[in-house]
Amino acid sequence: MAAKESETEFYWGSGSFPCWRAMLCLEEKKVKYQSHLLSMDKKEHKTEEMLKLNPRGQLPIFKHGQVIINESVGICQYVESAFKGQGTQLMPEELSQQAAVLQRSLEAENVRQKMVLDTLMYMWTTKPEDINQDLLKQKKQNLAQEVKYWEGHLAKQGPGSHIAGKDFSVADATFWPSLAFLVRLGLPIQSCCPNLAKYYEMVKQRPSVQETWPPHWKKAPGPDYFKDLF
Amino acid sequence: MAAKESETEFYWGSGSFPCWRAMLCLEEKKVKYQSHLLSMDKKEHKTEEMLKLNPRGQLPIFKHGQVIINESVGICQYVESAFKGQGTQLMPEELSQQAAVLQRSLEAENVRQKMVLDTLMYMWTTKPEDINQDLLKQKKQNLAQEVKYWEGHLAKQGPGSHIAGKDFSVADATFWPSLAFLVRLGLPIQSCCPNLAKYYEMVKQRPSVQETWPPHWKKAPGPDYFKDLF
Repeated sequence: MAAKESETEFYWGSGSFPCWRAMLCLEEKKVKYQSHLLSMDKKEHKTEEMLKLNPRGQLPIFKHGQVIINESVGICQYVESAFKGQGTQLMPEELSQQAAVLQRSLEAENVRQKMVLDTLMYMWTTKPEDINQDLLKQKKQNLAQEVKYWEGHLAKQGPGSHIAGKDFSVADATFWPSLAFLVRLGLPIQSCCPNLAKYYEMVKQRPSVQETWPPHWKKAPGPDYFKDLF
Repeated sequence: MAAKESETEFYWGSGSFPCWRAMLCLEEKKVKYQSHLLSMDKKEHKTEEMLKLNPRGQLPIFKHGQVIINESVGICQYVESAFKGQGTQLMPEELSQQAAVLQRSLEAENVRQKMVLDTLMYMWTTKPEDINQDLLKQKKQNLAQEVKYWEGHLAKQGPGSHIAGKDFSVADATFWPSLAFLVRLGLPIQSCCPNLAKYYEMVKQRPSVQETWPPHWKKAPGPDYFKDLF
């Protein structure tokens, strides 16, 4: 089963949340792989070759020998299982801690849903003159409520905690890209969300985060869509 | 860690997909629990007592001693881990099979997204006279394409296969409620999707499925929203 490095490949796009989740886990587990950065603008993930690896035409794609996984949380759980005993342990053995990691890693999808799928996709796919401002306001309020939910969760977890307990886990890898994107798009994190702000600074220091920072984010700041979220 | 039966509780609503996923896994693992069927119409899942167990005001809620999980796929994975060695093994040990189960169980969310969140919620929350028929048609086409994707996947898996391999797994528990609801709402499964039809008949025979059939589905047939999906 053990695949060689040459048989371990990862196809990704810059700034894609699901890609970043998986890359964080690969880095944390010290998995060596061939990295393929594709241009989503040029539709490089929709070529015939790529559609053979993922018929949905989506990224990421993780290939480990004969195994192919495209679901980001699935990649995280799989690499924990396949590379047990190397790098960071991403899923605790202890049952109640494991429950917390499962709960938070799956629940984190709500942030992506409310930010990207509900709000940003609406802004990006609607002509400016056709945007219903009341509807957009409602979507932003839902997102603000979601952000406050996680702020409250971290407040309960206590200082220095990660998203599902003391240590970095699959749940942090899943949650992090949404939080980083919120900050990039102007979320006033220091004033609205002191606990999230401390968490953000703590996780940002991790070598895995620095190593996987989206290339195009380094070149230019993001638009400040969320500066007025609170 | 082992919680007593009196400390193992499950709160659910009739016909909710996430609830049904978790119940299938609890039945398959032969987990004994106190069952609490709540009326979502009467907002029984939004009471102060319930909001303490899940601040999101959503079902299911699974309580196992001090552990509380509300995410359906998380409950499935947790009960496999906590009740290892009893009932059906829901997550294979072998790595490539495990990868398949992770991939399909997370990917199955696409069916729920396209059926419930995109299509049915639009139909249910828009006044009939305000429905944009072109938009509704597009949503139904997306759903039809998703159904065909799984039909093609099962065709490749071969006769008698479950959704992620030879045996019933977390992936079947996650996928099943969407398929059963499609059929309830008139999907012409025999004519459009012969492989899905055989899979449907096979899984429907499982005692866990019979035992957990949504109570209100037994009382009356569903509206035939999807009779013209193909």
